[in-house]
Amino acid sequence: MKNARNQHRTDYAKELIKIVQTTKDREELKKKIAAYHERDIANAIVESDKTVRKCIYDILDIADIAEIFSYIEEEPGKYLEEMPIEQAAKVVSNMDSDDAMDLFEELNEEDKYKLLKRLDKEAKEDVQKLLSYEEDQIGSCMTNNYIVVRNDVTIREAMSTLVKQAGEHDNIQTLYVIDENGIFAGAIDLKDLIIAREHDNLQDIISSSYPYVYEHEKISECMEILTDYEEDSIPVLTQDKKIAGILTSSDIVELVDDEMGDDYAKLAGLTEEEDLNEPTIVSMKKRLPWLIALLFLGMAVSSVVGMFESIVAVLPIVICFQSLVLDMAGNVGTQSLAVTIRVLMDENLSGKKKIALLFKEMKIGFLNGASLAIMALVFLGVYIHLFKHYAWISSFLISGCVGISLIVAMVISSLVGTIIPMFFHKINIDPAVASGPLITTINDLVAVITYYGLSGLVLIQLFHI
Amino acid sequence: MKNARNQHRTDYAKELIKIVQTTKDREELKKKIAAYHERDIANAIVESDKTVRKCIYDILDIADIAEIFSYIEEEPGKYLEEMPIEQAAKVVSNMDSDDAMDLFEELNEEDKYKLLKRLDKEAKEDVQKLLSYEEDQIGSCMTNNYIVVRNDVTIREAMSTLVKQAGEHDNIQTLYVIDENGIFAGAIDLKDLIIAREHDNLQDIISSSYPYVYEHEKISECMEILTDYEEDSIPVLTQDKKIAGILTSSDIVELVDDEMGDDYAKLAGLTEEEDLNEPTIVSMKKRLPWLIALLFLGMAVSSVVGMFESIVAVLPIVICFQSLVLDMAGNVGTQSLAVTIRVLMDENLSGKKKIALLFKEMKIGFLNGASLAIMALVFLGVYIHLFKHYAWISSFLISGCVGISLIVAMVISSLVGTIIPMFFHKINIDPAVASGPLITTINDLVAVITYYGLSGLVLIQLFHI
Repeated sequence: MKNARNQHRTDYAKELIKIVQTTKDREELKKKIAAYHERDIANAIVESDKTVRKCIYDILDIADIAEIFSYIEEEPGKYLEEMPIEQAAKVVSNMDSDDAMDLFEELNEEDKYKLLKRLDKEAKEDVQKLLSYEEDQIGSCMTNNYIVVRNDVTIREAMSTLVKQAGEHDNIQTLYVIDENGIFAGAIDLKDLIIAREHDNLQDIISSSYPYVYEHEKISECMEILTDYEEDSIPVLTQDKKIAGILTSSDIVELVDDEMGDDYAKLAGLTEEEDLNEPTIVSMKKRLPWLIALLFLGMAVSSVVGMFESIVAVLPIVICFQSLVLDMAGNVGTQSLAVTIRVLMDENLSGKKKIALLFKEMKIGFLNGASLAIMALVFLGVYIHLFKHYAWISSFLISGCVGISLIVAMVISSLVGTIIPMFFHKINIDPAVASGPLITTINDLVAVITYYGLSGLVLIQLFHI
Repeated sequence: MKNARNQHRTDYAKELIKIVQTTKDREELKKKIAAYHERDIANAIVESDKTVRKCIYDILDIADIAEIFSYIEEEPGKYLEEMPIEQAAKVVSNMDSDDAMDLFEELNEEDKYKLLKRLDKEAKEDVQKLLSYEEDQIGSCMTNNYIVVRNDVTIREAMSTLVKQAGEHDNIQTLYVIDENGIFAGAIDLKDLIIAREHDNLQDIISSSYPYVYEHEKISECMEILTDYEEDSIPVLTQDKKIAGILTSSDIVELVDDEMGDDYAKLAGLTEEEDLNEPTIVSMKKRLPWLIALLFLGMAVSSVVGMFESIVAVLPIVICFQSLVLDMAGNVGTQSLAVTIRVLMDENLSGKKKIALLFKEMKIGFLNGASLAIMALVFLGVYIHLFKHYAWISSFLISGCVGISLIVAMVISSLVGTIIPMFFHKINIDPAVASGPLITTINDLVAVITYYGLSGLVLIQLFHI
């Protein structure tokens, strides 16, 4: 797929490296580089050698280099080290506070300390501010890159405030408004400011009921606000309604990506999303908790299977299909779990809708179970007769037991896969984390008891196969 | 969680309904409503009764109602029907083309036809254009809401073009530039236009290497471009490099959400993400294919288990732990699968990194397997001695077999869970869809053969337990 794309999309990074290598005149080179997107320049830095990089650092303004470095995701410290420490500090001081934070997280302790010491006062304060939030609080993701105007100025004054601040702050699509006490008072869409006449009243273009989040809110609890309003940026307020920072649209994209990534990871039995570059021991720790939980729950299932040893001793063929019934129950439970977790993300779900979901899941479980049961009855019956040399009637009795067990196990699995996450959600425990192992275990138990119970009853006691 | 949030965040929708019900003066009401965010007005429409809605439709401009309707996700047709058909058609004509498309998808055939007939010419063309793309092509998500300027105008002319177009097109953060032939020639950041002096050259603020996607590209193949450049909008080009439309930041948020949602669903064994409101039969169809595949693959596992019937007949206790070993192998395989699929999303992954991932996964599989094996050895040994009344030595021989099977099964499961998705990715089949059932089956087979094979060899042939 990589090749298919590169066939028709220009590789800007490669183009740029060539330009740096062949253009001798400084001014000309600067102009040429300026036409490229910061992300492509960042790629060029990562893909080129030290000489090219030195040349880029040397020619561009600090502000540009700062913007470029916010796009370098892997080992930015490695490239930062190639500059004199004073230049590096200036670059980081010029970055948006959240980008600077991301970069700090990638540095080793020594570099972090050396840099932090040399940051300018404002940048140091901003970074320390962001570091003061918990990782799961929305405040830790915000940036100080926004424009603010007072609500008692004229259209013309607002416009000139914008032009003055725009040099440093480039998120200008939305202007944030505060009152005389510094309290958040709404937002102005830049479009409305641009098309307003000079004598219009600024109040008329302020959207005073603009959405916002609070700095200490949990990220997962603000996702709805961030995505549903479809705004380019959302302000983050302190408890006393002052603006602490904003979240830009690219922050929101990143947050959605992370949030979904974590749900995805949890569904797969990881405590959080993994990264290719993290050490083995970190990855191990993300996986082991779930596995240990499952080991002990699995032992419980084992002891229940143990209770049916006598049936197996009499009719060993039944063990052949244990894994089949258990696997199907597990799969159906996971399907219901995944659907339920997604549905529960909508905080405003009514009780009526939850009941409706429950019945729908069970209906699907029954219908799918019945379809599979018929296939199992036919195919396994033939298989048992042909390969295990049982009589036709016995063969279909056995495959019938498998079929009925499939239906029962799949209906109950759907029920369990829906109820358990709802229960955890109700008591404020993340359903994605807690539900998996419990559902697997309950479903295994149900499937084992149904299957062996039915086999014992029908095949041995009733028909004496 | 709902309550916790509402305690401190104003419920704008409720506030608004009250205002509509109590304000008598038209002009005053219009002004008051205008201060609210369109999404909150949309919520007010959904939560209120017909009288309130009629009042809102009656008072607001068509353009505002159009914007508001783009936020109504559930049954927008129901509310649209409450207007005269001519007003409804005007509302839809005023919507961004992608929002109009979303709305059309929610309507029944009759309403769709009635509306489409009455749309103004431009809107009809836009909607038909979008309908002409496949659902998985990026063109189907774009909007015509963007500002375009020629590259040979002055700063002042560009500014006045912007002011003229801004009334209709409110995505103004980025201005798109075309040359005299209408070919895409780059983009201008509005900030740069605002702070530019009148006599500056427009060419100097055009970013000529701006990222773009092609209209017929698959959505999944453009995700990297959309997210990595962190732009507020990305242009969609035709094959001859003319601008067909743009993707806004909220489109990008939605695409990321959908794309991740689909991966999530596929991991859970659904063919695509489900919706609470879709009919049971549709949900059934999304789940059944995977279950049928697993049923037949499960039959293969059953026939392998059948080969070990003789071991079970001699030593029935071994069946107790079959589900334990199989479940653990399955879980580890799913963990590796989830990590690998995520890593593979980065199109530029080198072969070296893939090998590194493979070894890392196997290392984690071994280390986690060893940890669990020790626990299984100790706890199961004691359990077998106490509850199944085997001698100490036999007990630990049996639990040792479980432990060693765990290590072998987990290392191989990690390997399989990594290699299979890589293979499908290589041959251009979506690894998230194809890998699940195959990995489960291979891991079941490996676990069954290892466990029963080892048990037969060690417990029966060697030690004659």
